[in-house]
Amino acid sequence: MITEALPYGVFSVGGAAPRVGVRVRDGVVDLAAALGDEVFARPTLNAFLAQGPRRWAEIRSRITELDTPPTYPLTDVALHLPVEVADYVDFYASEEHASNLGRLFRPNSAPLLPNWRHLPVGYHGRAGTVVVSGTEVVRPCGQLATSEGPVFGPSRRLDIEAELGFVVGVGGARIPPDAFAEHVFGVVVVNDWSARDIQSWEYVPLGPFLGKSFATSISPWVTPLAALDAARIAAPTRDPEPLPYLRGAEPWGLDIDFTVSWNGQLVSRPPYAGMYWTPAQMLAHLTANGAAARTGDLFASGTVSGPARDQRGSFLELTWNGAEPVEIGGEPRSFLADGDEVTIAATAPGPDGTRIDLGEVRGRILPA
Amino acid sequence: MITEALPYGVFSVGGAAPRVGVRVRDGVVDLAAALGDEVFARPTLNAFLAQGPRRWAEIRSRITELDTPPTYPLTDVALHLPVEVADYVDFYASEEHASNLGRLFRPNSAPLLPNWRHLPVGYHGRAGTVVVSGTEVVRPCGQLATSEGPVFGPSRRLDIEAELGFVVGVGGARIPPDAFAEHVFGVVVVNDWSARDIQSWEYVPLGPFLGKSFATSISPWVTPLAALDAARIAAPTRDPEPLPYLRGAEPWGLDIDFTVSWNGQLVSRPPYAGMYWTPAQMLAHLTANGAAARTGDLFASGTVSGPARDQRGSFLELTWNGAEPVEIGGEPRSFLADGDEVTIAATAPGPDGTRIDLGEVRGRILPA
Repeated sequence: MITEALPYGVFSVGGAAPRVGVRVRDGVVDLAAALGDEVFARPTLNAFLAQGPRRWAEIRSRITELDTPPTYPLTDVALHLPVEVADYVDFYASEEHASNLGRLFRPNSAPLLPNWRHLPVGYHGRAGTVVVSGTEVVRPCGQLATSEGPVFGPSRRLDIEAELGFVVGVGGARIPPDAFAEHVFGVVVVNDWSARDIQSWEYVPLGPFLGKSFATSISPWVTPLAALDAARIAAPTRDPEPLPYLRGAEPWGLDIDFTVSWNGQLVSRPPYAGMYWTPAQMLAHLTANGAAARTGDLFASGTVSGPARDQRGSFLELTWNGAEPVEIGGEPRSFLADGDEVTIAATAPGPDGTRIDLGEVRGRILPA
Repeated sequence: MITEALPYGVFSVGGAAPRVGVRVRDGVVDLAAALGDEVFARPTLNAFLAQGPRRWAEIRSRITELDTPPTYPLTDVALHLPVEVADYVDFYASEEHASNLGRLFRPNSAPLLPNWRHLPVGYHGRAGTVVVSGTEVVRPCGQLATSEGPVFGPSRRLDIEAELGFVVGVGGARIPPDAFAEHVFGVVVVNDWSARDIQSWEYVPLGPFLGKSFATSISPWVTPLAALDAARIAAPTRDPEPLPYLRGAEPWGLDIDFTVSWNGQLVSRPPYAGMYWTPAQMLAHLTANGAAARTGDLFASGTVSGPARDQRGSFLELTWNGAEPVEIGGEPRSFLADGDEVTIAATAPGPDGTRIDLGEVRGRILPA
């Protein structure tokens, strides 16, 4: 049984201007028409996000009480990027993922770098290339290292990263972990497309840049935190104990299950439950230096990888950098070919043993 | 003799709404009033920037023909952030700076990493904390490594970076170096404040994050490229020759001289002329993977450092990580104390042997 998560998105019908809707079953409720509120007659969620948690709760409650609201079938609407992204930050919060990448990229050192257990490592990504699910992704070009020096050309090691993204509604600086729900509105499913060959050559010492900046896809639906009550769990035990600014009493582990499908074939089931750093700690860290978060900020968890092979959230890990290909459509494959399509979906426990659907993020690769 | 650069900014008088102005001598011309054009009655330059180079040239020409335009004395106006920053990218284009940091941070390896001479290394910074000159900067807090493990507290090694920033007017992807002036409107003076202790602990493997994200200050005036004709010079010889996508016939080296003043005392004169990578190459690289630049994007050069000690554009380099303090107000100093004020200014050759003033970026440190 599926409980209604009542996620928010931005939709349009025919040639009409995009506006805010809420998904109910197979339909999209036109919120501006249903509630007579201009804040929903806009092409992004940002104005509503800025109104804050009391208002979010009030609107969610009013939606559940609507009798026969104006609704369009999902099949009749176009879905748009739901949020005008302010700043985009990507973390690295899975111990399995960070350890796997350490083993692959730095085989002669300890898999985790010394800072990893002390702080949620992260970096800024490109906000302007965050796109909505369904947007086709052109294979990026860049410098690729060869034994004769770098050459410029299309990436040969195009990969995915299955992540959970968090959308900031109310800005602020120095946000303690227990104030998380006062600031963050909800979650999206994220595919942080990654060109491993571009990334591995460029990333020292200032981090990933063109290997990531060509596209980051997000689900069209933003699931409010209010729908995730039953998914909230304690985070894993952290050792050493985090510094005080990263401590909180509220449980912000999330028991969310991902699926990763490659050309329609299920290849991985990454579990969010084991993530080392919680999103509340990510936001606390992001703002701990005094930097303010803003309405529309998006921060993502980093690749979700579990301990089992079929729980890894990137193809780099899944195929162990190509050493252990997976069979897709009868062929051994390690990275993305032109025409490939990847769909990442997520579900979570809902009330009373039900499950809620967090939607999916889908993208197909076009040739360079 | 000073030639008029006719830089653009956003100003307000009394309680009136901020709007676009052009600096002429000691005054600010109210462009919306002078030209009767609504595009200048806005709180940022973005709408004008998006109109493109023909329009930029037309307006510059009309300004020079104004007879007695409505002008406010500079002393009577408040200056605001001139651009709503879309994405912010920071490069690392000075060979001296990159080599100095290599020597300081990785004393047992070659100063330059293998990729440095092949591509303009860069990373995304935080757009939401770009502030206008004069904004006070609160000392950031963060994790600081100690022999007993990391502690959380105010940065003890707060530094500056003198940089030149480039403001994108017209977006696009895969912008060749010779199309630079079709896309970039002008330049700002940048102080990329840096907390070295936070940065050195956090930055592996994903690059600088909280050590930079608390504040980046820019000059209130955006000097159009059109004012920099006499400053354009050939870039230094690059060895090896850059890959074809980074080559162009147009000279985009810039003969711009910086001054860095610490509590009013001139401590450094970084020369932009020696920068290894040109801004045209930075933009070509930034968009080479297919990522589009947008109106309002800001990208900065990275610290401008010359070969002489008094040409270094950061205090980390100037004091060789504290080993060679400078005397400020009679005291040996290496990093910023609360109450310190730093002013970075820049000038460039103008027509007929004159010089033009690119303005300054100024900031004072408040306690954490």
